[in-house]
Amino acid sequence: MNKINIAIVGLGNIGSYLFNYLNKNKKILSKKNNCVPNILFVSAKNKNRKRNIRISKKLWLKNYLDATKIKNVDLIIELIGGAEGPAKKLVFNALKNKKHVVTANKALIAKYGDELSELAEKNKVNLEFEASVCGGVPIIRSLKEGLIANKISKIYGIFNGTSNYILSSMEKDNKNFNEVLNQAKILGYAEANPSSDLNGDDVSSKLKILSSLCFNSFLNNDIHVEGIKNISKEDIDNAKSLGYKIKLLGYSELINKNIYQRVHPTLIKKNSHIASIDGVLNAVIVEGKPVGQSIIQGEGAGPLQQRQL
Amino acid sequence: MNKINIAIVGLGNIGSYLFNYLNKNKKILSKKNNCVPNILFVSAKNKNRKRNIRISKKLWLKNYLDATKIKNVDLIIELIGGAEGPAKKLVFNALKNKKHVVTANKALIAKYGDELSELAEKNKVNLEFEASVCGGVPIIRSLKEGLIANKISKIYGIFNGTSNYILSSMEKDNKNFNEVLNQAKILGYAEANPSSDLNGDDVSSKLKILSSLCFNSFLNNDIHVEGIKNISKEDIDNAKSLGYKIKLLGYSELINKNIYQRVHPTLIKKNSHIASIDGVLNAVIVEGKPVGQSIIQGEGAGPLQQRQL
Repeated sequence: MNKINIAIVGLGNIGSYLFNYLNKNKKILSKKNNCVPNILFVSAKNKNRKRNIRISKKLWLKNYLDATKIKNVDLIIELIGGAEGPAKKLVFNALKNKKHVVTANKALIAKYGDELSELAEKNKVNLEFEASVCGGVPIIRSLKEGLIANKISKIYGIFNGTSNYILSSMEKDNKNFNEVLNQAKILGYAEANPSSDLNGDDVSSKLKILSSLCFNSFLNNDIHVEGIKNISKEDIDNAKSLGYKIKLLGYSELINKNIYQRVHPTLIKKNSHIASIDGVLNAVIVEGKPVGQSIIQGEGAGPLQQRQL
Repeated sequence: MNKINIAIVGLGNIGSYLFNYLNKNKKILSKKNNCVPNILFVSAKNKNRKRNIRISKKLWLKNYLDATKIKNVDLIIELIGGAEGPAKKLVFNALKNKKHVVTANKALIAKYGDELSELAEKNKVNLEFEASVCGGVPIIRSLKEGLIANKISKIYGIFNGTSNYILSSMEKDNKNFNEVLNQAKILGYAEANPSSDLNGDDVSSKLKILSSLCFNSFLNNDIHVEGIKNISKEDIDNAKSLGYKIKLLGYSELINKNIYQRVHPTLIKKNSHIASIDGVLNAVIVEGKPVGQSIIQGEGAGPLQQRQL
């Protein structure tokens, strides 16, 4: 059977989970993909950080960029994060050196996706970024392939589990923003530094990626962005008394060949489908012809310790 | 730009719509796919049936099987329907002669999918059947690719728009089965002969296809099937008074490496998500690790006259 030789760069929660998952499920993954996933190398900023995984010494790269140079590496999985610095360097170099790349890095793809796609195409390798939007929920694949023959007019939804968890909890548990944020950090639903989740930047990156796929355009940076930082308990209560919930929506629409994109807290009628997307759930709503309206939803993220291997 | 030469066999509502759609949207489809769709031939049982399309005389094949023999046909789109007869003959011959095949024929795929897949693989051509389950909603692509690295444990949902429309209307409009069925026929939500929609066979075919993709198995014919023909207004009312709706579910689960499949009317709690899938909507719920629960939903079908080109 074919073998695909993999280098994983970045071993935080996701990287460590993936390392274990690929090793423990080699048999079933090989059977389903007709190809054995073989982790050849790993790299991380902090080699000695406490991790729940056993990594053989010979797997560690001296320098993370070596992954792009070693001949028998087929695929580099970038889990460093951030639009600049080492993640950018790694992915550009990987594609230049004809390595396939898998990344969950929405900031990188939202900023350099056009250049990276061109580079991948030129070098005849794949650049895959399914997990950059809504975790494992297959929205990217659906837009790139499943819905490709449709004329999409609109895409919108809830793309950030952290902010949705906070808004849902403020409403349900009758608590204020800071109380809920602290609780979310303890439960693993918010990162130690959740600023990009709260100021709308995370949703903005995801929306740009979705727009460019839906409307077959370059990345469009013309986007109004407003996060949930200024939403008070009073706002939630007022909305509730009028029959609404407040949700942080990403919304993109094609009107007369122009793309209109915006991210902001939105009043949503209580009995609509999107109002039912609570907690860390994500939902993407796509409208197009001839398919009509499709909804793709699932867990955007969530604490990894709850996921079994 | 590359060109893909297409033969459409079967020109009922769907075939005629597709013929128009491909012709009218050539430019946008070419741009998105980097490939021009070029209809080279068509064929239909009744050449003279009234259709809303203009077909140049030179497009008509003398015999539908010629599509499989003509050298410059790349792709055959089979829209005849039925598991046996001409549809079966066409698809087997097409793959043997190294033509790519696109089909919406769930009955054919549910019966001969294993042999057909093997044949396609052997001849290095694609056999695509996205529209065989839930119309244009990209569930097949999601299972075959987007969710491929997950271990799926369960898949279930509402896969038949006609029966869902009937059950929803019986509940909402307080009408009995036959009244609603007649109304559905007039509105185009039910075919003139809706027996496979009503006796559960349509859902059974779709469920078998989904199971085999989820569990990476051959098609499994061990399936309990019960349709909605015996659901009375009284059943709906009793369910309602207890806080339930009746939905026709397809349900497949992997337990200890065995696949358990069943199709039957099911009591669903009124406030659950799947109870909200009314009318001609379809919804597929997939559970797996590590992705958790994903929901993919949209319009399974519906009267074509409502869809614009």
